[in-house]
Amino acid sequence: MDKGRLEAFSDGVIAIIITIMVLELKVPHGDDLTVLQPLIPVLISYVLSFVYVGIYWNNHHHLLHAVKKVNGPVLWANLHLLFWLSLFPFVTGWMGENHFSMLPIAVYGCVLLMAAIAYYILVLVLIRLHGWDSRLARAVGCDVKGKLSALAYALAIPLTFFNHWLALSIYVGVALTWLVPDRRIEKVLVE
Amino acid sequence: MDKGRLEAFSDGVIAIIITIMVLELKVPHGDDLTVLQPLIPVLISYVLSFVYVGIYWNNHHHLLHAVKKVNGPVLWANLHLLFWLSLFPFVTGWMGENHFSMLPIAVYGCVLLMAAIAYYILVLVLIRLHGWDSRLARAVGCDVKGKLSALAYALAIPLTFFNHWLALSIYVGVALTWLVPDRRIEKVLVE
Amino acid sequence: MDKGRLEAFSDGVIAIIITIMVLELKVPHGDDLTVLQPLIPVLISYVLSFVYVGIYWNNHHHLLHAVKKVNGPVLWANLHLLFWLSLFPFVTGWMGENHFSMLPIAVYGCVLLMAAIAYYILVLVLIRLHGWDSRLARAVGCDVKGKLSALAYALAIPLTFFNHWLALSIYVGVALTWLVPDRRIEKVLVE
Amino acid sequence: MDKGRLEAFSDGVIAIIITIMVLELKVPHGDDLTVLQPLIPVLISYVLSFVYVGIYWNNHHHLLHAVKKVNGPVLWANLHLLFWLSLFPFVTGWMGENHFSMLPIAVYGCVLLMAAIAYYILVLVLIRLHGWDSRLARAVGCDVKGKLSALAYALAIPLTFFNHWLALSIYVGVALTWLVPDRRIEKVLVE
Repeated sequence: MDKGRLEAFSDGVIAIIITIMVLELKVPHGDDLTVLQPLIPVLISYVLSFVYVGIYWNNHHHLLHAVKKVNGPVLWANLHLLFWLSLFPFVTGWMGENHFSMLPIAVYGCVLLMAAIAYYILVLVLIRLHGWDSRLARAVGCDVKGKLSALAYALAIPLTFFNHWLALSIYVGVALTWLVPDRRIEKVLVE
Repeated sequence: MDKGRLEAFSDGVIAIIITIMVLELKVPHGDDLTVLQPLIPVLISYVLSFVYVGIYWNNHHHLLHAVKKVNGPVLWANLHLLFWLSLFPFVTGWMGENHFSMLPIAVYGCVLLMAAIAYYILVLVLIRLHGWDSRLARAVGCDVKGKLSALAYALAIPLTFFNHWLALSIYVGVALTWLVPDRRIEKVLVE
Repeated sequence: MDKGRLEAFSDGVIAIIITIMVLELKVPHGDDLTVLQPLIPVLISYVLSFVYVGIYWNNHHHLLHAVKKVNGPVLWANLHLLFWLSLFPFVTGWMGENHFSMLPIAVYGCVLLMAAIAYYILVLVLIRLHGWDSRLARAVGCDVKGKLSALAYALAIPLTFFNHWLALSIYVGVALTWLVPDRRIEKVLVE
Repeated sequence: MDKGRLEAFSDGVIAIIITIMVLELKVPHGDDLTVLQPLIPVLISYVLSFVYVGIYWNNHHHLLHAVKKVNGPVLWANLHLLFWLSLFPFVTGWMGENHFSMLPIAVYGCVLLMAAIAYYILVLVLIRLHGWDSRLARAVGCDVKGKLSALAYALAIPLTFFNHWLALSIYVGVALTWLVPDRRIEKVLVE
């Protein structure tokens, strides 16, 4: 089974997720600056999620690049990842509309954590299919960065109830570390 | 006529269907747990439909993989299947918002049944084009699983008016049996 | 310049148009048959537009199949066609919500007419690029069916104000004649 | 890393942006001409944005055609461009609903300016990857037209507060100059 349609379908779903998030930025009534003001947190929330979905697309792109074949479990592990990504528009809108209050930030963190776990499962299913001595396995390595990110989200979620701005800063900080693309896979592929 | 654009178009439509369903999960006003509670049935309904649309994408992916050529009737049989799949967001939202009450569950079952019939028609049109002794025909076989699923939906629809939770359980049960990808086609293709 | 991305972009836009039309089928409040009744004209309107957009996708698929190259004017002629197709969700929703009253039917006809003209312009621009003695030109021929359809829409629009059911019947009738795929192009391609 | 998925993802996002803009054209209640009248500015705003997004797709298509390879920074420069394009539906709807009043026109100009800058950054990142003596660099040249367009937007934004119709005319005028596709790249590619 070839990976072409898996890539095409994932690209389609991720493209739609990243684009329909902007629909939460509702066109306001009125045409002065005061109507734009309540939209600022929604816009910031949108930017954060745009970056996160962009990170997943980039990493997915790199990961699939090293993939030779797919099977049934890979298709489902991929759909599982897409499911958690599909909840981004909801949690983004909820966090933005409530001006980054406590519970929405915690729920946003849960979706981040579940997406990270789903990505990790996808990597494991792919490595099991290709073998632990495959180029893919070497390219991904033990994925310290991915595990640390998941750990950061897991810590940020309970932290929200003490200081939700700190939790939000963790999400922003993790995103910044990922803006640098995954050079490990690129490196092994060039070798 | 090659099958590439048929796959690309189907991937596009299915990707959009699976993603816009999440728009039924409306961002609530307020930021405490009480506003999330009424969303739980909508979320469960979304998960069920996400799995069903995922099943159709997986099976469509497997089916098209064995296809060599397409013609006019195949294009229309495929659009017919996409039409019934496109009603998923509506019935999903309706079933979720009404907390799985009777009529929405019955209507959901009708869409499931019509999609199963449309898939079966697509298979028949494809087999007629490739011949009953083609690799495609052998790969699909007599599709007992597909026919039993359609039968289960057909039984669940009237059952709704006696015990709608039982009907819903049938939908969930059938989905679980399909989470296992269609090994018959994979097997024949590997031969 | 190759035609691959033109096909991919058109597939994407048409897939989205055909799918977001279903968003006009708003999830009703309540769970009995009475809430479904006002949705029936919206559903019928959706089916008609689904078939029309499907026809455009099929014919576009056939047309592009015979195309060897594209240039700037082709890209714009194609976008012009996509623009008129993009108005389908609006006119479909308006016609359905107003239970097929006069003005919406006339406006629907205007969009049908403009899409037919835009398709014809695309064909002309493609033939000018490939030459009047190309396989594409022979495959398309003088497109009597396309011209007669445009004529039918042009007649149906003023007719709406005398008998709008007759106008609607013309739209349905033309759609039925197109459900048969464009065998002319298929025939020449097989030669 | 190959450019195929970058093109596919960009096509997907741009196709969705250009199509969901039409959702701002809300289906009105009532079926006479008076309900269509307030939609005219929304429609005009939609046409302008459809042309602008179409221009970006065309130029992106031409640009990527000359590209041989992509890397991490290219993926992010591309996502940055898509981010600004994704704000088109919002500013289009806001400008249309407020009948082209002052502030929405200025904000529309800001999004135009940022998209132009993002496109320029993408070009620079691509040239840095391919080398200043590559066919890509020669094809793009010093991009006088792109720089003049950005300058025009930058001038139009403050101008809005003196005469917003003049600012709007500048947007329309720049769009018209771009409807002609980028012959420079086509020319060099043919050489």
